[in-house]
Amino acid sequence: MDTASDGNTSGRPRRADAIFTATLELLADKGYEGLTMEAIALRSEVNKTTLYRWWKSKDEVLAAALTHSDLLTFSVPDTGSLRGDLVETSRSIHTLLTSSATAPIAAAVLAAAPHSPALAAIGRAFFADRAEREHPIFRRAIDRGELPEHTDPRLIMDMLAGAMWFRLFLRADAVHEDDLAAAVDLVLDGAAAR
Amino acid sequence: MDTASDGNTSGRPRRADAIFTATLELLADKGYEGLTMEAIALRSEVNKTTLYRWWKSKDEVLAAALTHSDLLTFSVPDTGSLRGDLVETSRSIHTLLTSSATAPIAAAVLAAAPHSPALAAIGRAFFADRAEREHPIFRRAIDRGELPEHTDPRLIMDMLAGAMWFRLFLRADAVHEDDLAAAVDLVLDGAAAR
Repeated sequence: MDTASDGNTSGRPRRADAIFTATLELLADKGYEGLTMEAIALRSEVNKTTLYRWWKSKDEVLAAALTHSDLLTFSVPDTGSLRGDLVETSRSIHTLLTSSATAPIAAAVLAAAPHSPALAAIGRAFFADRAEREHPIFRRAIDRGELPEHTDPRLIMDMLAGAMWFRLFLRADAVHEDDLAAAVDLVLDGAAAR
Repeated sequence: MDTASDGNTSGRPRRADAIFTATLELLADKGYEGLTMEAIALRSEVNKTTLYRWWKSKDEVLAAALTHSDLLTFSVPDTGSLRGDLVETSRSIHTLLTSSATAPIAAAVLAAAPHSPALAAIGRAFFADRAEREHPIFRRAIDRGELPEHTDPRLIMDMLAGAMWFRLFLRADAVHEDDLAAAVDLVLDGAAAR
């Protein structure tokens, strides 16, 4: 009997958390190129055979790790207002991009993304999954009359998340607590004079 | 007499354009790690001694290339309205990030940025230079009453540029002409229902 899937009925190996953590740590340490099924198996202390039973390639493990790892988990806020929910969501993204446990993962994804079609596909799936989870924020805001019907949440999230990635990684500037609220205000109220 | 600086009074070597092009092409082809003074000299057909007379390191050449190369040059629009100017500017950024001549440079900068403090400093200087050049767009908009006094142009540009980088490189999605106008509308008018 295989220890990793023994007694498992949840559609993932029992040591999934260890596998996901190992995968993301390896990505952060060695970059996308240095990530291999061999190294994942070694670091998570799971048989390579077991690993291959669940995922056909490192890209499949990485996609699963990015989506399901506890390390990147986030709770969808429900503060009672769209503004509050977006500030909370921005704060989660900021923590993800700057905390010592997760910033190297974000940096590694960023570094690898432009050169790897496989990682591009993973990025697409990862952010689609996030968007799916964030959907209630926008659904509730429309119900409360804070957003017009047919608002596209993607553009709003591209702006909030994109401005943060851009400022932190490309402009190499800091993002402060005040900046998070200012960004949400801009996206909701606009910059134009009235 | 050195051919590269012969007769030059402009504060840069006579073959500066060739040097800048070679530097950016090497960055795109080989990545930041593969960029060396040796390779720049070889590719631009300039003596290494000449190169070192003008710049102390590859980081200095790269910073100069990013700021002064014809390849990355852009004209600051003056369409008569802030909305028009921002759509034009977004279009320039989109071209820069997607055209075959410049997209690999942008991707290489993106790939190297999170891991290189030197490149981070270059990024900071590059985008500060762009912001400086874009300043008239915002100055004129304030004069025309389109923006309140004391508007911070950086947040607006972080959002427009950031959303585009984010969508193209991280979400691996396309940006269409309509999306450019939609982004500018969002940043100027806000998403909130009125």
